[in-house]
Amino acid sequence: MKEHKIHSGWKNAIHEVIYEADTPLGKLFDIVLIFLIVLSVILVMLESVKEIDQQYHLILLSLEWVVTIFFTLEYIARLISIRKPWKYVFSFYGIIDFVSTIPLYLSYILAGSQVLLAVRAFRLLRIFRILKLVKFMGEASQLKAALRSSRAKIAVFIYVVLILSVIMGTLMYLIEDNESGFTSIPRSIYWTIVTLTTVGYGDIAPQTNLGQLLATVIMILGYGIIAVPTGIVTVEFSKHTKGANGKSLVHTNTQACPSCSAEGHRDDATNCYKCGELL
Amino acid sequence: MKEHKIHSGWKNAIHEVIYEADTPLGKLFDIVLIFLIVLSVILVMLESVKEIDQQYHLILLSLEWVVTIFFTLEYIARLISIRKPWKYVFSFYGIIDFVSTIPLYLSYILAGSQVLLAVRAFRLLRIFRILKLVKFMGEASQLKAALRSSRAKIAVFIYVVLILSVIMGTLMYLIEDNESGFTSIPRSIYWTIVTLTTVGYGDIAPQTNLGQLLATVIMILGYGIIAVPTGIVTVEFSKHTKGANGKSLVHTNTQACPSCSAEGHRDDATNCYKCGELL
Amino acid sequence: MKEHKIHSGWKNAIHEVIYEADTPLGKLFDIVLIFLIVLSVILVMLESVKEIDQQYHLILLSLEWVVTIFFTLEYIARLISIRKPWKYVFSFYGIIDFVSTIPLYLSYILAGSQVLLAVRAFRLLRIFRILKLVKFMGEASQLKAALRSSRAKIAVFIYVVLILSVIMGTLMYLIEDNESGFTSIPRSIYWTIVTLTTVGYGDIAPQTNLGQLLATVIMILGYGIIAVPTGIVTVEFSKHTKGANGKSLVHTNTQACPSCSAEGHRDDATNCYKCGELL
Amino acid sequence: MKEHKIHSGWKNAIHEVIYEADTPLGKLFDIVLIFLIVLSVILVMLESVKEIDQQYHLILLSLEWVVTIFFTLEYIARLISIRKPWKYVFSFYGIIDFVSTIPLYLSYILAGSQVLLAVRAFRLLRIFRILKLVKFMGEASQLKAALRSSRAKIAVFIYVVLILSVIMGTLMYLIEDNESGFTSIPRSIYWTIVTLTTVGYGDIAPQTNLGQLLATVIMILGYGIIAVPTGIVTVEFSKHTKGANGKSLVHTNTQACPSCSAEGHRDDATNCYKCGELL
Repeated sequence: MKEHKIHSGWKNAIHEVIYEADTPLGKLFDIVLIFLIVLSVILVMLESVKEIDQQYHLILLSLEWVVTIFFTLEYIARLISIRKPWKYVFSFYGIIDFVSTIPLYLSYILAGSQVLLAVRAFRLLRIFRILKLVKFMGEASQLKAALRSSRAKIAVFIYVVLILSVIMGTLMYLIEDNESGFTSIPRSIYWTIVTLTTVGYGDIAPQTNLGQLLATVIMILGYGIIAVPTGIVTVEFSKHTKGANGKSLVHTNTQACPSCSAEGHRDDATNCYKCGELL
Repeated sequence: MKEHKIHSGWKNAIHEVIYEADTPLGKLFDIVLIFLIVLSVILVMLESVKEIDQQYHLILLSLEWVVTIFFTLEYIARLISIRKPWKYVFSFYGIIDFVSTIPLYLSYILAGSQVLLAVRAFRLLRIFRILKLVKFMGEASQLKAALRSSRAKIAVFIYVVLILSVIMGTLMYLIEDNESGFTSIPRSIYWTIVTLTTVGYGDIAPQTNLGQLLATVIMILGYGIIAVPTGIVTVEFSKHTKGANGKSLVHTNTQACPSCSAEGHRDDATNCYKCGELL
Repeated sequence: MKEHKIHSGWKNAIHEVIYEADTPLGKLFDIVLIFLIVLSVILVMLESVKEIDQQYHLILLSLEWVVTIFFTLEYIARLISIRKPWKYVFSFYGIIDFVSTIPLYLSYILAGSQVLLAVRAFRLLRIFRILKLVKFMGEASQLKAALRSSRAKIAVFIYVVLILSVIMGTLMYLIEDNESGFTSIPRSIYWTIVTLTTVGYGDIAPQTNLGQLLATVIMILGYGIIAVPTGIVTVEFSKHTKGANGKSLVHTNTQACPSCSAEGHRDDATNCYKCGELL
Repeated sequence: MKEHKIHSGWKNAIHEVIYEADTPLGKLFDIVLIFLIVLSVILVMLESVKEIDQQYHLILLSLEWVVTIFFTLEYIARLISIRKPWKYVFSFYGIIDFVSTIPLYLSYILAGSQVLLAVRAFRLLRIFRILKLVKFMGEASQLKAALRSSRAKIAVFIYVVLILSVIMGTLMYLIEDNESGFTSIPRSIYWTIVTLTTVGYGDIAPQTNLGQLLATVIMILGYGIIAVPTGIVTVEFSKHTKGANGKSLVHTNTQACPSCSAEGHRDDATNCYKCGELL
């Protein structure tokens, strides 16, 4: 709030539009930004489809320019309206904003570079910025908290899966001959993970009886192992889940009413729910 | 109940048969309706199998007419017996009923249109109407309540899965050459979702070492990510499920205290937990 | 116990060996029976492998005769030693025992019938009988109880999955042309279930852009839907799980100590765990 | 502690470096060991890729020698510094250490034996030894406890899955003709497990209508059955997980009452819940 006074009036106005969502203009800006981010991602996708690119090249390029110019103006506006521009430039979103703005300019310098396509995909990351405003991000932070606290358990789990894959993959390499696709240990490990995670492409598949037997073991293992992350995450979720009013759903008040000995009061109860006595 | 008196006698009778299931005739009607709905769906399926259609075309067409005539009569009966026919016509089930009745008539106007086949599939949706009467719909409403209250969390989850798919798909497009099937970014994203959800068709599969490495990461991610919706739904289910003693584990008392307006009382509360006032 | 006295001595002895597992002979009988059941299943499997059948036909046939003779003797012994033989003959296990004994005899009457192979597979069902004795069947009955009480919910779930498959399958049939494998609606529904359950063979796979888009929706649906049975079963399990001592793990004693008001006593507590006062 | 005094000084010093991780040298040793174990595994993998092996054979062999010499020295050091060397030699880790050291020596005796590759993979098992020191092994032991106590339930589950696979596999063998890949019962069972676990390679896939119908049933079964291990593990996890207040949700007090020998007291109990005696 304070910093606003220091800024000159028009900088202030820009700042409000870009960084705040509670004014009508601020909301409009956010909606236009989301729209252009999604548009830019769709453009990158469509350009990669050869038939579409050949037929509608000019339309795609024009839209690309519209997006780029908007992103450029937005980047400059952010730089001007903020008090510490350098902090923004080197922040996570600052880098994403910069990287997602320059590809079209670069394409005129480093002509034909396909790598630029990838850079443009980073634009999608910007949606995270806007989603902060969306009401269900409270849910997201709850999910995040649950996942963060089960981090260590999940690390152990992934470690075990990897060890298992290396051992099983090596075994499969030794059992199967090269003709069925198990041409090297890394490739066999790749196959093992494809099987263990129940993806099962079928581009590599065991042909020998022993290989199919071991594959069966790996599948049942994978089928059972999936229970472990699920169990971990479910237990964490149930700990982190709160009721609609933001309070834990299960009341753990252990007080008993001094007058009627009723128990199971709400955590914030001051009177007995049965006789009305003060607790 | 009241509206019955306003109706004339035979309209009343029809209304009872069609809209209520507690009379013998009402039950019979429902059973015949279910049977014909299922029959009509099977007919649509069988017609799509060329060999069967060629051999038994006449039988299929006759049965099709039986179903259509019944549906037509039922639609007219519903229109007549109800007090506000227009409300029914434009209701969800009204539209389904109409759409599922007309395809055979249309086939004589717009000869040979294959699109009509699709329309007939809508008949299956009508089963929802009848299932309301089935005893285990209490279970269904419980499931529905659990899914509804985890809606926001699942939306966040699907959003994250989609973002991840776009980024990973674009990366795979850049890593893999076109020959292994990653011919465009949308196609790569399609492949990523096939892999992330552990479906794994194998029509597109990475051939390069780097591609297989990234594929491995996507698989393990997908294998772990599946824990998230499971965790969400399980926790919601456990909230909506009743305890062993037949009482809900979560108190759902919607009373407000007449004196201090406090809410969230225990289900068996007789006094306000805040001010002690009688509820 | 009583019926033993009525039986003559040797019938009694046979009854004890066959129906009871707590004598040394009874245990030996059970072990031999398990061994022969497993052997007979392996024999059926090996016979179906052409190379093995050609090379070792005589050995397989001899072992087949050993198994069949033992099963015949066992069947007769069961008939003799039991008081109500007809009840056994028409019981579930009686029919399985009969059906698993006759195939070899039948093969001399109805020469070369391949259907007999299937009948022999029923032998494996007999293992259920013996497993009753195994200590971890207590666990199995717990699992069974949990599954039984979630029966109605699972029925609703499977119904929704089937409806979804029919609608999605029909849509895919209309979108995809016949060349990519979607040659009829039943086949498209088969593909939809393959995709929805994340099996994903890849023998049929969408080729058009719209088809791949819809396939993506089906996959994410399937990926999310799997959370529903998991949630149902988990919640049921947590209700049916008891502690090591056979009592519910969570004590729900709501008594408070009359002397020190301590709460959270064991369900079977008679004295306060804090002050020792009688509850 | 005591045994250190008995050892001579330098043996003591070696013992501390190898067996303890709390001195700087001990930590360094552990890090070098982890690095070399991982290196040796990567070497085994790279050697199996023909192109890499041909081009960099000398570098790989040299690194192989470095690893082998270190492992040899470590093995000898372990033998010398420990009081009961024979106990170590025949212990689980003693055998792994020996087996993971000798392959390179053996390759000069039994020239060209590919089996040696497999033996080297055992080196990875050694990581388990070091991971004991890593902080998140507390988590691992919690996971292990949860899995161990659900062992019996999981055994029942796997048994049911196997029985189901044998029966369904045999049915599929009888339904499908040999041309679609169901050439023998073991192969059909392999396919059934591939389908039931939702892996779905697609190398074998049903072609007949009846086969596809049964396949559909197997898929939906598999899709539902996956809920069972997940439910089991989740419930076990929630038992082994501590509550929000840092106390275990399940009381694990192992005290017995000195007066009446009652067990299963609350963790914070001071008096027996049965006779009121002080604990």
